[in-house]
Amino acid sequence: MKLLQQRILRDGAVRPGGVLKVDSFLNHQMDVALFAEMGREWRRRFADVPVNKILTIEASGIGIACVAAMEFGVPVVFAKKSRSLNLDGDVYTAKVRSYTRGGEYDVRVEKRFLGPDDCVLILDDFLARGGAAMGLLSIVRQAGARVAGVGVAIEKGFQEGGDTLRRAGVRLESLAIVERMDADTGEIVFRGE
Amino acid sequence: MKLLQQRILRDGAVRPGGVLKVDSFLNHQMDVALFAEMGREWRRRFADVPVNKILTIEASGIGIACVAAMEFGVPVVFAKKSRSLNLDGDVYTAKVRSYTRGGEYDVRVEKRFLGPDDCVLILDDFLARGGAAMGLLSIVRQAGARVAGVGVAIEKGFQEGGDTLRRAGVRLESLAIVERMDADTGEIVFRGE
Repeated sequence: MKLLQQRILRDGAVRPGGVLKVDSFLNHQMDVALFAEMGREWRRRFADVPVNKILTIEASGIGIACVAAMEFGVPVVFAKKSRSLNLDGDVYTAKVRSYTRGGEYDVRVEKRFLGPDDCVLILDDFLARGGAAMGLLSIVRQAGARVAGVGVAIEKGFQEGGDTLRRAGVRLESLAIVERMDADTGEIVFRGE
Repeated sequence: MKLLQQRILRDGAVRPGGVLKVDSFLNHQMDVALFAEMGREWRRRFADVPVNKILTIEASGIGIACVAAMEFGVPVVFAKKSRSLNLDGDVYTAKVRSYTRGGEYDVRVEKRFLGPDDCVLILDDFLARGGAAMGLLSIVRQAGARVAGVGVAIEKGFQEGGDTLRRAGVRLESLAIVERMDADTGEIVFRGE
């Protein structure tokens, strides 16, 4: 998606350790007009699938998912990262490995909100090694729901998450795939360029 | 806001300990069409203020803030609850007391995203004792920005957060104010009824 690529080039910054900072428009300050364009693009790409629910994970996926959901006309469910006193008993859970922060954490979704009648699109801001996406896929499958696919704003093409999902037969729609980037020069190259 | 009150009566549930469960449409599964109506209502109520940025707090405020921001045509910034390896140095911070989970936590916003030229509307899902709102107000003031006001979906009128903000001269627009509720009978009474 050209618009997102241009925005990454203009406002993104490459940091050592494979970090792409896009927090001025994607995951700290959030440009909701851009999110609406992203939602329209996913809607176009998943037009053949009867998506009736969007699943994402807190925190930075929620804004993108909610604005995109306006385009699809469906509700959003977000997986919670920690046990909350307000959560009732019956939950699907999955373990997610975090490479950014280190360690593992649990994600959970109440069973009431996902079931066999659902066709679920998973949305998130980043796909790197695929930990979050695999956790969310596990939850959709535990629910017996149909996986419409996975949509991410930015795929780090130089990490294995995208290939892992594609090899597993998951339909993946990444709006921008960073093929390589260089913290010294600031260069960012997208796949297909 | 009648639509939200009706939804709370239909799908909300009162639990012991002053807990109002609205997670089927507000803060776990999220009805984004309802959020859009809420955004229009806040837009109407704050029509006289030149809001140019919306500030919220992760996680459950983000969806509401982003959909509402579509109505205002402004970006969203969300305060992060924990130190992240991807956050740069210069941040505003505030301590927030959590009554739901117990204890205190830090919230932080990068200084790049709030400054003296901003007129900031603070949005969140709940206002109970006011801990999160006070933390966000502190951050807006640290930035030297103008506080447009605070908008919450549900104010627990039987707890002190709303009165604290009003006494402090903060403009507060709560879309539904629960005057009292009863976990035994399930009764929910809104202010002004």
